[in-house]
Amino acid sequence: MIILGIDPGFGIIGYGVIDTNRAGLLIDYGAITTMKEASFPERLQEIEENLKVIFDTYKPDVVAIEELFYFKNQKTVIQVAEARGVIILACQKYCGKIFEYTPLQIKQALTGQGRAEKAQVQYMVKAILGLKSIPKPDDAADALAVAICHSQTSKDLNQNMAR
Amino acid sequence: MIILGIDPGFGIIGYGVIDTNRAGLLIDYGAITTMKEASFPERLQEIEENLKVIFDTYKPDVVAIEELFYFKNQKTVIQVAEARGVIILACQKYCGKIFEYTPLQIKQALTGQGRAEKAQVQYMVKAILGLKSIPKPDDAADALAVAICHSQTSKDLNQNMAR
Repeated sequence: MIILGIDPGFGIIGYGVIDTNRAGLLIDYGAITTMKEASFPERLQEIEENLKVIFDTYKPDVVAIEELFYFKNQKTVIQVAEARGVIILACQKYCGKIFEYTPLQIKQALTGQGRAEKAQVQYMVKAILGLKSIPKPDDAADALAVAICHSQTSKDLNQNMAR
Repeated sequence: MIILGIDPGFGIIGYGVIDTNRAGLLIDYGAITTMKEASFPERLQEIEENLKVIFDTYKPDVVAIEELFYFKNQKTVIQVAEARGVIILACQKYCGKIFEYTPLQIKQALTGQGRAEKAQVQYMVKAILGLKSIPKPDDAADALAVAICHSQTSKDLNQNMAR
């Protein structure tokens, strides 16, 4: 099963691709970055176009994406949510199987501890994938974390399918 | 100039089309409703497909859309923002000229009073368009209000273009 993990955003969108049938799991990872000089609608279009290339390239069976919560910066939460809507739509159009995980679920799956620090999650991404260093940027490491989270929890049930 | 006004949402999305070169202004109005039984990603796809039909039918020169603020129901704000992202992307792809207005700007433009009640704005939509009754549903009346707001303020400047 090929899993595309996505860490949503509008300035930078992390992605990570793993294959559960492959030794070492990892296929690829990286980040889409949108131009600061562009208008917000143009940046949404960039996100969609880049995601289409990623779907065409890796043909994932499922997508795993982080859920969005109210957080520190209330100013950006609406724009991040708007971008996430565009990302969800692309996942729906180009794949159709979308699973959502909370930060707590991801931490729990990777470290066995829902309150784990970010650094610990990143360390586990590196360890599980047998990498020499932590994937950069952080957004790509976060995307790999949600993909790994799905590979570990999907054995159980379909409870995280997007509703 | 043909203006498409949009009142964003994910369960119901109001739209209103006016032509500033036409006596009486009004071309059409209505609402897209998405199926409650469908998953959220499927509802986003419904929104995009229905908007495409609206753009193909009316070929608007510009789109005017309400800005989103934190409001009463914090639970739905993220989903409304996600749907609004999909709407903005459709406007970008099928039109390219997008203007955003706050509720205050819309009230001010239609009634001369930023603190006007919703009923007063709806009354002015009916009066300005010379209709016998207030357009239904409310979402369509709100969409017509933002379209009228753009027709009145766009004479001045481009300051509300989406950034």
